[in-house]
Amino acid sequence: MQETIKVGLMGLGTVGSGVYQVLNENGSEIALRASGPIEIAKILVRDMEKERAIRVPGQLFTTDPYELVNDPEIDVIVEVMGGFENTLEILLAAIERKKSVVTANKDLIAVHGHELMDKAANAGVDFLFEASVAGGIPIIRPLIHCLAGNRIEEIMGIINGTTNFILSKMTNEKVSFAAALQEAQELGYAEADPTSDVEGLDAARKIAILASLAFNSQVTFSDVTVKGISSVTDRDVMYADQLGYVVKLIARAREVDGEIEAIVRPTFVPKDHPLAAVGGAYNAVFVKGNAVGEAMFHGLGAGSLPTASAVVGDIIEAVRNIHAGVRGKVLATSYHEKPIRSEAESVGKHYIRLVANDKPGVLGTIAAIFGETHVSIESMVQRKHDGNSAELVFVTHDVRYGDLQNALAMLSSHTTVTQVHQVLQVI
Amino acid sequence: MQETIKVGLMGLGTVGSGVYQVLNENGSEIALRASGPIEIAKILVRDMEKERAIRVPGQLFTTDPYELVNDPEIDVIVEVMGGFENTLEILLAAIERKKSVVTANKDLIAVHGHELMDKAANAGVDFLFEASVAGGIPIIRPLIHCLAGNRIEEIMGIINGTTNFILSKMTNEKVSFAAALQEAQELGYAEADPTSDVEGLDAARKIAILASLAFNSQVTFSDVTVKGISSVTDRDVMYADQLGYVVKLIARAREVDGEIEAIVRPTFVPKDHPLAAVGGAYNAVFVKGNAVGEAMFHGLGAGSLPTASAVVGDIIEAVRNIHAGVRGKVLATSYHEKPIRSEAESVGKHYIRLVANDKPGVLGTIAAIFGETHVSIESMVQRKHDGNSAELVFVTHDVRYGDLQNALAMLSSHTTVTQVHQVLQVI
Repeated sequence: MQETIKVGLMGLGTVGSGVYQVLNENGSEIALRASGPIEIAKILVRDMEKERAIRVPGQLFTTDPYELVNDPEIDVIVEVMGGFENTLEILLAAIERKKSVVTANKDLIAVHGHELMDKAANAGVDFLFEASVAGGIPIIRPLIHCLAGNRIEEIMGIINGTTNFILSKMTNEKVSFAAALQEAQELGYAEADPTSDVEGLDAARKIAILASLAFNSQVTFSDVTVKGISSVTDRDVMYADQLGYVVKLIARAREVDGEIEAIVRPTFVPKDHPLAAVGGAYNAVFVKGNAVGEAMFHGLGAGSLPTASAVVGDIIEAVRNIHAGVRGKVLATSYHEKPIRSEAESVGKHYIRLVANDKPGVLGTIAAIFGETHVSIESMVQRKHDGNSAELVFVTHDVRYGDLQNALAMLSSHTTVTQVHQVLQVI
Repeated sequence: MQETIKVGLMGLGTVGSGVYQVLNENGSEIALRASGPIEIAKILVRDMEKERAIRVPGQLFTTDPYELVNDPEIDVIVEVMGGFENTLEILLAAIERKKSVVTANKDLIAVHGHELMDKAANAGVDFLFEASVAGGIPIIRPLIHCLAGNRIEEIMGIINGTTNFILSKMTNEKVSFAAALQEAQELGYAEADPTSDVEGLDAARKIAILASLAFNSQVTFSDVTVKGISSVTDRDVMYADQLGYVVKLIARAREVDGEIEAIVRPTFVPKDHPLAAVGGAYNAVFVKGNAVGEAMFHGLGAGSLPTASAVVGDIIEAVRNIHAGVRGKVLATSYHEKPIRSEAESVGKHYIRLVANDKPGVLGTIAAIFGETHVSIESMVQRKHDGNSAELVFVTHDVRYGDLQNALAMLSSHTTVTQVHQVLQVI
C-alpha cells in the first residue's frame, strides 16, 4: 500500500454524489486495486447550504474552484459539474499545475477534447474521460486499447437514454411523441428544456468523441449532421413495425474513402439487429472492425451510479499511474486530418412517407421521379388517407443522400404530391 | 515515430496466421497507434515445409523456441500455439530474459496464470492475455480497468462457441445433440475429439480466468464445477421452449458471503434475457457490479481474425509501454484468498425432468419428497409417456443445491419414479 492520494471533486450533483458514494462504499477494495487509498479532500459546490441526499462533511465544501486547483496536496481533479464556459479554463489550469484530470463532460470534450489531451500530454499528466460517452459502459478504453489492431470501419450506437426512452414508449405503448416526452419529463428522464436530448445534440457530442478516437482524426460537435426525434410520429413508428423495423435514434460514424461521415438521425433498425433490442434507458455501442468483425457494448448509459462507475474507474487508473510513476503516457490520438464527408455524399437506405392525390397515374409519376434521380425503391406501402388522398411509404435501396434530396425536391414541387411528411434513414 | 520493435511469434496456426495478417494489413495504422513500427522477426513452427494459406517468408521460420526467447533483438514474445507442457517453461524463460509476453493460451493461464503474472511483475515486463477469453471481445481490460470501481457481484457468459453452435442448432432446427455435433465437426466448429468443448472444460478454463480477475482471488480450472452439454436432449430443448427459455451453456462465477462460486452448466435462460439472443458462434459476457449495474460485451468469441484482434491489441499495448518506458506496471491482482464455495451451498433455480408411474397419488408422493427436502416448485408440466408412465417436468424456486441433491436421491430410490433424466440450472 502506498500513501493516500487526494482528489478534488468538482460538482456534487447526480454524478458527483455517485462518485462520492462509490469511493466510500467500495473504498477498501478500491484502495487495493489502486495500490493505495483515495481520499476526496475538497468538493466544489454551487451552494454550500443546499440539502443533499447523501451525507458529506460540510468542511469539504468550497465554492471556489481554485481552492482545488491550487491545492498542492491534490493530485487528481475530477470534474463532473458539466457546462464549459469556465470549465475549460479551470481544467487547463489544473493540468498546468500537474494534476491528472478525470471528466465526464461530453459537451467540453466534443469541442475542446483535443486541446485538453494535447496539454495533458505535454504536462505529463493523465486526462481521462471514459464517462463522457454511454455512462457506465466501457467503450473508450476498449476502443483505444483492445481494438487498436483494427481498422475501424464503423461505430454506431444508441447513446442517448432520453430519446431511447421516448421512442421505446412510442413503440411499445403507441403513444404520441408529446405524451412520451411528458412522461419522460415527469419521471426525470428528460429535462424541463429537452432540446439537447430530443434534437440529437447530446448524441452528436458523443459520436464526435467516439469518431475522433475510432478514426484518429479530430471530429468535433459541429462536424456532425444532426436530426432529432421531434418530427417522428406514431405513423412512422407504425410503418416501422409493419416493415420489420423499430425506430431508434442512431448516432453513426463511418470512414469512407478516407473521409469521415458522422450523422445522428432517427433510424429504422431491423428487428433482428442487436441494437433493436436495446430498450428504455439502456445504451449500446456497436463497432465494426476489419479484424474483430462486429462487437457490441451494452449497459446503462446514464444515472448516478453507472456514470460514477466509469468516473471511478478513471480515478483508479490515474492513481495507479501516479504510484507507478507513469502519468501522462496516454497518446494524443488525432494524428490524421481526415476531411468530413458532406451529407450529400453519404450513401444509405431511407424511409420516405408522403401524402399524394389518390388518382390514376400518381404512382407512375412518383416512380418516374425516383427513376430520374437514381433513387431505387426496395419496398412500398400505399394506404387510403382522407378524402381524395393516399399515404405512400417507400423504403429505398442504398442511395446517395444528394440524389435523395433531388428526388424529394422534385416530389415536393409536383402537383400530385400534397406533402413529403418524413424521411428517416434505414440501416 | 520510434524505432521498430521486433516480435517473436510462437505458432502459425489459425490464430498465428491471423496475427501475421492483421499486423501486415493494418501495419501503417498500427505503427502510429503503437508509436513505432512492429516487425515479426521470427516465427516458431512445428513443420518448416508445411503448405500455408498465407504467404510468409520462409527465412522467418524456426522449430526451436529458444531461437526466439534468446534473441536479444526480440522484445515481445507472442504465444499462440496452445498446449502447456513446454509452453510454461518457454514463457518463464522469456520473462526472465525481460521480454514482454502476449498469449491467447487459456489452458495455461487457467492453471499457471498467477505464477506467470507474478514473475512478469517481478521482472518488470508485461504479461497480457486479452485473447484468452471470448476471442475478439474486449473483456479482460474493461473488467480490470473500466469496472475497477465496482464490487463485482457476478460474471457470467456464453464463452464457448462450439457448444453455443450445437445448442442453437438443436433449438432452431430440432435436431439431436449427436446430429448437431456431427454438423459442427463437418463445418470445423468442433474438433475430432470434442471433449474439451462439449464437456464444458474450455468454458471452465475461461470462467476461472474471469473469476480471478473479477474477485481478485486465485481461481483455477480445478475450482470450477463443470457439467457439459452431452446429456442435453431434444426433449430438454422442447420443454425449455414451452416454459419460456432457451438452453445455453452458461459459465458463471459469483461472490457469495466472501466465497467464490464458479460453475459451468447447461442452463435455461429466459427468452427475454440479453444472453438468450446470443446465437451461433457469438460469445457474450454479462457483468453485474454494484455501481455499473448490468453490462454486456458481445462479439465473435473465436476465429482467426477476431482472436488476432485481441492479440494484436495486446501487442500494441506492450510496444507502447516499451516506448514509454513503463513496462510491467500491470498489477498482480490476486491479493485476496477467498475460499471456493462448495457446490452443495450454491443457491439457484433448477429444471428437473423425470419419468414416473402414471397412477393415482404419484404427484402427491413426489410433491411430498420436494416438501420434505425444502425444494419449492415454481412450475410443473405433466405429459403422457409410453405405456403406464408419465413424464414430469419441474422448475423449482431458488433452492440450495445440496437440498436438491437430497430430493433427487429420494426420488430416484422411490418405487414410483422410473428415472430422473435431467437436472439443469435456470437463471
